[in-house]
Amino acid sequence: MKESRINPNKIALKRILSANPVLVDVKKVKDIPGYEDRMILTSGPPLDWSKYEGGQRMGILYAAIYEGLAQNIHDAEKQILNGKISIAPCHEYQSVGSLAGLYTASMPVLVVEDTFNRTRSFCTLYEGKALSRLNYGCYNNEIRERLKLLEQFVGPALHIILREGGGISLKPIMSQALAMGDELHSHSSAASLIFSKLVCRRLLESESIDKVVARKAATIICEDQYFFLRLTMAACKAASLALEGIEDCSVVTVMAYNCHQFGLQVAGLPKKWFFGPHGRLEATLFDGYSEDDIAWMGGDSIIAETMGLGAFSQAASPYLARTTRQSWEKWIQRNESLYKITIGKHINFRIPALNFRGAPVGIDIFKVVNSGLTPPMHIGIPGRKGGQIGAGTMWAPFEPFIDAAKALRSY
Amino acid sequence: MKESRINPNKIALKRILSANPVLVDVKKVKDIPGYEDRMILTSGPPLDWSKYEGGQRMGILYAAIYEGLAQNIHDAEKQILNGKISIAPCHEYQSVGSLAGLYTASMPVLVVEDTFNRTRSFCTLYEGKALSRLNYGCYNNEIRERLKLLEQFVGPALHIILREGGGISLKPIMSQALAMGDELHSHSSAASLIFSKLVCRRLLESESIDKVVARKAATIICEDQYFFLRLTMAACKAASLALEGIEDCSVVTVMAYNCHQFGLQVAGLPKKWFFGPHGRLEATLFDGYSEDDIAWMGGDSIIAETMGLGAFSQAASPYLARTTRQSWEKWIQRNESLYKITIGKHINFRIPALNFRGAPVGIDIFKVVNSGLTPPMHIGIPGRKGGQIGAGTMWAPFEPFIDAAKALRSY
Repeated sequence: MKESRINPNKIALKRILSANPVLVDVKKVKDIPGYEDRMILTSGPPLDWSKYEGGQRMGILYAAIYEGLAQNIHDAEKQILNGKISIAPCHEYQSVGSLAGLYTASMPVLVVEDTFNRTRSFCTLYEGKALSRLNYGCYNNEIRERLKLLEQFVGPALHIILREGGGISLKPIMSQALAMGDELHSHSSAASLIFSKLVCRRLLESESIDKVVARKAATIICEDQYFFLRLTMAACKAASLALEGIEDCSVVTVMAYNCHQFGLQVAGLPKKWFFGPHGRLEATLFDGYSEDDIAWMGGDSIIAETMGLGAFSQAASPYLARTTRQSWEKWIQRNESLYKITIGKHINFRIPALNFRGAPVGIDIFKVVNSGLTPPMHIGIPGRKGGQIGAGTMWAPFEPFIDAAKALRSY
Repeated sequence: MKESRINPNKIALKRILSANPVLVDVKKVKDIPGYEDRMILTSGPPLDWSKYEGGQRMGILYAAIYEGLAQNIHDAEKQILNGKISIAPCHEYQSVGSLAGLYTASMPVLVVEDTFNRTRSFCTLYEGKALSRLNYGCYNNEIRERLKLLEQFVGPALHIILREGGGISLKPIMSQALAMGDELHSHSSAASLIFSKLVCRRLLESESIDKVVARKAATIICEDQYFFLRLTMAACKAASLALEGIEDCSVVTVMAYNCHQFGLQVAGLPKKWFFGPHGRLEATLFDGYSEDDIAWMGGDSIIAETMGLGAFSQAASPYLARTTRQSWEKWIQRNESLYKITIGKHINFRIPALNFRGAPVGIDIFKVVNSGLTPPMHIGIPGRKGGQIGAGTMWAPFEPFIDAAKALRSY
């Protein structure tokens, strides 16, 4: 390792460990800085429209219909081709998309401010427990209604309680959740519980909120155990933004994929994408599905892994190992191996089964290249016909790490 | 083992595993069947008043003052001596006392019904996070005020939401909590979270509850992470009552202690106490305290251990091991050893670190006698000057198991 790289990575580690993500507001997608009218944000690195396929392509078209930009699929396609509707990666707008992503102007977005790093990030709201969701490339009346409930009740309710009671600090919730069996990517039960309890209390305390809005919002937020993932994603994105542009820094800031390929960014070369094929997948599919049913539709949620969560804290979740039919013993060993490719241990995110050692955090592209070990990531798995058909672990491809290392050395 | 004992213990195991505890109401201590006017219930086996000492004695006197039965300590003592105030063990009234216990007529009690076994049990409410509490032998204006808040807000609020929304099933909460790092005796964070979220939602939904009552109740219930322990205790007591009187059954139904001694009951000899000295203690004390400061004030919460929780599920809680400065590795080994003295594995209470094996449940007195291994129990530790000064593991004394085994054989 070049002597000069020690300091940049120390700066990066300090920013990661000091990050203090706070949910400060819920606004609309149209309020995201730089967001332009008639724009649809989607997951993964940028891609030419002609290459979007399957569920991600369909999801983009459906999003246009949902927002009222197009009458139907053909109309949406025509408008995309003639440039009346534009497509852009979430990551280029301080945002992260779960699975296919799919942000349109009127959707509510969580606004997370990292009060240490002075960065701000955004993420849309969890659509609910139905396996068919817009971000899994599906659309029908039920999905539309559900998205409308987020606009009408969840967004406004959160906006009001945040205005009344101030921001909600996410780090203590995340820290406690890791001690309660979450790895905070594919399993966010504890964090969602803590958050939803807090929201319910604020709703009870609120003097100004309409009762119906409060009740409907609480019902949706408490519905299941995934609500918090979007907050984790935004929190990790805010920290990741704080690393961008640290000169000569070899820490990964972004991993993301679309239906076509995987993309990587590194702190020392901000906004520059390095590409590779989709990673190797270890999938656990719901009953009735086979490997042939697996489709790629994009995903930015692996931002969690860049900040020591998800597969980088998998030993924290024996429950997730069990429900995805994996060996927790193996997960503990694998989790331990990840210190080889990271620049430090987290202070607040600690893993019980590793004797409360801090999670391995800050993926160093040189360590990946030297060890040959690429980052594992926990992902949701969509099916060819849309909807979620399973979950699993994906290993990042090796190529973009090599390319990024070469580019950073020659920079 | 006598052939004839196989069946009774199978009956016991079935009742334990099928138990379905539901919080059905919150009433007053005076509503407990058999409870008599001017009675104070306290933890542990029965004891002559002359032998009550230290915090438990003081607690009983303070309880009389709190209830308005006596003007002051001397008055309370006089009335106890002349029989105008009576003292009885919680366990003889389908109840369980946390630490010293101390039930008086106007206090609210949780009413838990085991809908499978058709048993009913009671437990008072958690006093709150202050280390000085009535059940730790302390009393002052602040403690009095706190107890009044339970009477004025928490009891009524729970009563209303249970009447409006029906009973709350405790088993699913307990089962989920074990997967989230609780052992459900000294650590009930997850269960308290799940329960308090549920309560907050019901309060939000309630049409009839007064806003102020709802808010004050929510504040107290959400205050910290111990609220659920009383529900665990009542749930375990309800199951334990279902074992009483199974002929020739060698399963422990009650372990409890007062300031003077330890007491044991076994299913085949219902209501009969077997006595021994306080058990060996492995204590972790708060800073500034030494072993000399430890006092005994009673405790029925070890009913949890009779039903496979607490020390019998200690491997579930790496967090508790860490915060009490114990080795989790050792806890895992110890937890595994407890299958030697129990009659089965729980179906719903599973321990992640033991590959989700069911908790060892149903302590068989013959297995204890034959193995020489007595049950460990997680307990809170009070100080000589009152208040909590630490937590730890107590091992039951051997003597009462020998006596109970002899009595059951000759019965």
